[in-house]
Amino acid sequence: MAFESKKLINNPNDVVTEFIEGLVETYPGLQYLDGFPEVKVVLRGDVSGPTYDKVAVISGGGSGHEPAHAGFVGDGMLTAAICGDVFASPPVASILAGIRAVTGPMGCLLIVKNYTGDRLNFGLAAEEAKSEGYKVEMVIVGDDCALPPPRGIAGRRGLAGTILVHKIAGAAAASGLPLSDVAAEARHACGVVGTMGVALSVCTLPGQPKSDRLGPGKMELGLGIHGEPGAVVADIQPVDLVVSHVLNRILSSETNYVPIKRGSRVVLMINGYAILGGTPVMELMIAAGKAVPILQLEHGVAVVRVYTGSFMTSLDMAGFSISIMKAEQAILQRLDAATKAPHWPVGVDGDHPPAKIPVPVPPSRSAKNDEVLSRPEQLNEQGRALEVAIEAAVSAVIQLKDSLNEWDSKVGDGDCGSTMARGATAIQQDLKKYYPLNDAAETINEIGSSIRRVMGGTSGILYDIFCKAAYARLKLNSQSDAAITPLQWADAFEGAISAVMLYGGAAAGYRTMLDALIPASTLLKQRLSGGDDPLDAFVKSADAAVAGAESTKQMEPQAGRSTYVSADMLTSVPDPGAMAAASWYRAAALALNHHNSKPPPPAPAP
Amino acid sequence: MAFESKKLINNPNDVVTEFIEGLVETYPGLQYLDGFPEVKVVLRGDVSGPTYDKVAVISGGGSGHEPAHAGFVGDGMLTAAICGDVFASPPVASILAGIRAVTGPMGCLLIVKNYTGDRLNFGLAAEEAKSEGYKVEMVIVGDDCALPPPRGIAGRRGLAGTILVHKIAGAAAASGLPLSDVAAEARHACGVVGTMGVALSVCTLPGQPKSDRLGPGKMELGLGIHGEPGAVVADIQPVDLVVSHVLNRILSSETNYVPIKRGSRVVLMINGYAILGGTPVMELMIAAGKAVPILQLEHGVAVVRVYTGSFMTSLDMAGFSISIMKAEQAILQRLDAATKAPHWPVGVDGDHPPAKIPVPVPPSRSAKNDEVLSRPEQLNEQGRALEVAIEAAVSAVIQLKDSLNEWDSKVGDGDCGSTMARGATAIQQDLKKYYPLNDAAETINEIGSSIRRVMGGTSGILYDIFCKAAYARLKLNSQSDAAITPLQWADAFEGAISAVMLYGGAAAGYRTMLDALIPASTLLKQRLSGGDDPLDAFVKSADAAVAGAESTKQMEPQAGRSTYVSADMLTSVPDPGAMAAASWYRAAALALNHHNSKPPPPAPAP
Repeated sequence: MAFESKKLINNPNDVVTEFIEGLVETYPGLQYLDGFPEVKVVLRGDVSGPTYDKVAVISGGGSGHEPAHAGFVGDGMLTAAICGDVFASPPVASILAGIRAVTGPMGCLLIVKNYTGDRLNFGLAAEEAKSEGYKVEMVIVGDDCALPPPRGIAGRRGLAGTILVHKIAGAAAASGLPLSDVAAEARHACGVVGTMGVALSVCTLPGQPKSDRLGPGKMELGLGIHGEPGAVVADIQPVDLVVSHVLNRILSSETNYVPIKRGSRVVLMINGYAILGGTPVMELMIAAGKAVPILQLEHGVAVVRVYTGSFMTSLDMAGFSISIMKAEQAILQRLDAATKAPHWPVGVDGDHPPAKIPVPVPPSRSAKNDEVLSRPEQLNEQGRALEVAIEAAVSAVIQLKDSLNEWDSKVGDGDCGSTMARGATAIQQDLKKYYPLNDAAETINEIGSSIRRVMGGTSGILYDIFCKAAYARLKLNSQSDAAITPLQWADAFEGAISAVMLYGGAAAGYRTMLDALIPASTLLKQRLSGGDDPLDAFVKSADAAVAGAESTKQMEPQAGRSTYVSADMLTSVPDPGAMAAASWYRAAALALNHHNSKPPPPAPAP
Repeated sequence: MAFESKKLINNPNDVVTEFIEGLVETYPGLQYLDGFPEVKVVLRGDVSGPTYDKVAVISGGGSGHEPAHAGFVGDGMLTAAICGDVFASPPVASILAGIRAVTGPMGCLLIVKNYTGDRLNFGLAAEEAKSEGYKVEMVIVGDDCALPPPRGIAGRRGLAGTILVHKIAGAAAASGLPLSDVAAEARHACGVVGTMGVALSVCTLPGQPKSDRLGPGKMELGLGIHGEPGAVVADIQPVDLVVSHVLNRILSSETNYVPIKRGSRVVLMINGYAILGGTPVMELMIAAGKAVPILQLEHGVAVVRVYTGSFMTSLDMAGFSISIMKAEQAILQRLDAATKAPHWPVGVDGDHPPAKIPVPVPPSRSAKNDEVLSRPEQLNEQGRALEVAIEAAVSAVIQLKDSLNEWDSKVGDGDCGSTMARGATAIQQDLKKYYPLNDAAETINEIGSSIRRVMGGTSGILYDIFCKAAYARLKLNSQSDAAITPLQWADAFEGAISAVMLYGGAAAGYRTMLDALIPASTLLKQRLSGGDDPLDAFVKSADAAVAGAESTKQMEPQAGRSTYVSADMLTSVPDPGAMAAASWYRAAALALNHHNSKPPPPAPAP
């Protein structure tokens, strides 16, 4: 598969040094020691060994676990990180250079994951540094809970729990404690944290072919962070079950790795290795969301902090690990302490409520939405006029259905007429049922809702926006029960067109319904401002709408499917959306003109 | 391939709600609105619309871009994020619920990426909210620089530059500015940012088969964040060239998308979509490390902030985008302002030096390391004794080579004798050349260095640790030129053994060299404390070493290759490492005893 061998890097041998270069460009507080490519040490830019008055906290190991360890360098966490090549312990000379660079009279604590290479190289560097007169202590982290207690040397592997130990030691050091106390806090933390990993794929070293040790549909439980096989291979299961199994192993009373009992308070860390098939953040959060209730309900512990993210990765291995640490008050204080380490998560500190209660969805501010709407028993003057205009408008659209479809079949997908007629028919029906016609603003609002309910797609939402924007302006500018003036109608029309332009992104000349509506709105405003008779102005503006719609034959399409149609075809066909708009607008104008030239009809029976 | 279809999730339809549940478990400052699964809104837990006295800043859109947008909710950035389903714009009802939940008298700003669905749904919600009396403004972000300026509606897509707009608007709102000013800052920011993406694989919707649109060895340049095809497909190139090409496109004087000229100051954002074959952080940092010098040297702009991370992802699409924003002082102030949004990067604020100068590697504190060592012209009493002991010890090891190899071939990899003899021979040669024999501590240190130079592997580093630890204790406890007392030797021996135990992880009974050394050290200390003659104590302790080494035949192996060997085989063979240790220790003791019972030899010729 193409994906497997693709990498956006330069020379695989340079990945660690190039990573460090990018890291220090990103974080101005970080620096690196000279001596590439052998010496690969990231350190706080504000710490100089001879004058540093706190205990230096140093960690490191093979690379390929980014952001560990260099991303955790910063005031309040690590003072320096010693980077080896990918999955290779750093050489003694690099470790020693790092110790010398940041260790002052208070000494330094080395935090080392329990791997032979790291123990020996850091150990030798520690002894060399001691022989140079530095105070040095070393703490070895082995938080793996996947296997039964090992016999002898091998010990439990150091996994993501190491990051929590870094934070605790770093905060203890920042508080000014002496080396022995900082080391004691770190050692204590090592004893109360357990971790277990699960993966869907094993990792690939840069420049190596991808391993397919895991077959399709399989996952590996209890594995380390260097591609070593896990304790068990199993069929992939839903993440709920995987999380539950992992938590059972960590908290097993058989191994008794972590002193956590029912009633304990715990810290949870969900550490992502790499993507699992979606975005890492999304899937890690899903695991976190599952782990919290399982811990609380099945294990009877209170989860007081949750750290979710990629802290200790393993190249491209896909999966995650879960760490549980006993949340003693002293530990929480260290975990919550401020740090400038760029990859320590923010926003996690502070007490969690026992359970997250969702915030209720606030009600609408407009009381009317909650009322049951109904057609008024008695229409007033404005209500009758509105009804006449709406009925004419929707009839015109329904009559134009076939023509609209025909035009649309030449320049679009052929359903403009059907879609528009569907909306028009809904308005026709709803009008009779419940439009509050004596309240023009609310009626316009309901027209939008009728359209939206049946039309869907871009045209449906655009007409809904058109109505909602007109409604908002009518409400803003008019008294609830007073008749709306012609100029208020014109303002609302103009505002509705602006909203369609803003949210739809079209403008005049784009071959859309706006090419009918904009000329109409412009002329209507002009005539009314000039003192013309309102009905006369309405009819004249309708002529402008029709002329505008016809003019779309000459326009290049700027949106939608029409952009793919030949110019020849387009010049013989108007934009159906513009023709539809012109037709309903013109029908409304003519009907209103006719309505006002005859006496009012008798009120309909209730 | 197995990897392609593997996901650690539950039902693909629930990924967004489960993500939100995990997010609010992780960050106590975040809350979510009731109304799952339709309403998916993440908001600040400390903001309640009716009483909120700042402008609310709201964004959102389809999911699948995590941590965008919900990960950027927090004081100083977003007030709420409205989440749609994967790649689907959120419905109007959700957007409206979000607006109602956090918008107070100051109003709200909607920041919307330029996609038709988002524009229309957020637009309709904005109009509805306005009709309810809320002050609402909307800013549309289109920062894509991949294509020539589009004709008409489509416009430029909203990409990762949106995150910078969120931060700027959020900081402006937090500073108490009114809605029109917050919107104006956001609009201005949209005009000075440009983004372009590159990907090695296209994204896969949860529950869908993986697309293989891109062939092997191909990458796609200028693509969006919803799986839509890029502007160009090209052969994969080193990341240097890719970064250079992308920067050229963003800063092209032809499209003139961003008003950045030579001499401008800029902000750089490297936004990772997903892994590229290694850890996301590592490879994003590599791209950042390349982009900074290219911008500075080839484009003549000063890079004043670098944001490197995963901000706006696209499911499992592998690749990254680069955004460049003009770094006006007002913009920097907004970007640097404090925020509690959990996924806004920390440690990036503050001015960067023009170029990162690596910190020089500090020299060793011990002046002696820098001197050229040489064998003293005249050996003193202690120097002569030391020479005798060392010569005897290494000779014994060399003589035992074949036996060690034979034992090791039965329980290990058969090279113990050869490895030990190689170290012994190096000591033999270096002793004559430059060991400063009159300084016992330094001589022990040099023995470690000789061993390390030629032995390698675990035994080499363990013996080096042994020597370095002894050296450190001898230096600590003795005057430089004074003879070392027997008890000081015994203390150093004991300390050296402790260091091997600590860093190597073995203990008594693990079938290692410690099973010879520990009984020897224990007896030596006892005898010396009891007032025995030191030489006699040394010889007696050597007998204990031999007895201890022989006793390894009865021990189960706890480390190394011996753990795989049958018990029968093991009981007939001692641990070769223990036998080697006993042999050099015993030889030294006997030689010293013999040396002290005869008159001192004449000093060797210089």
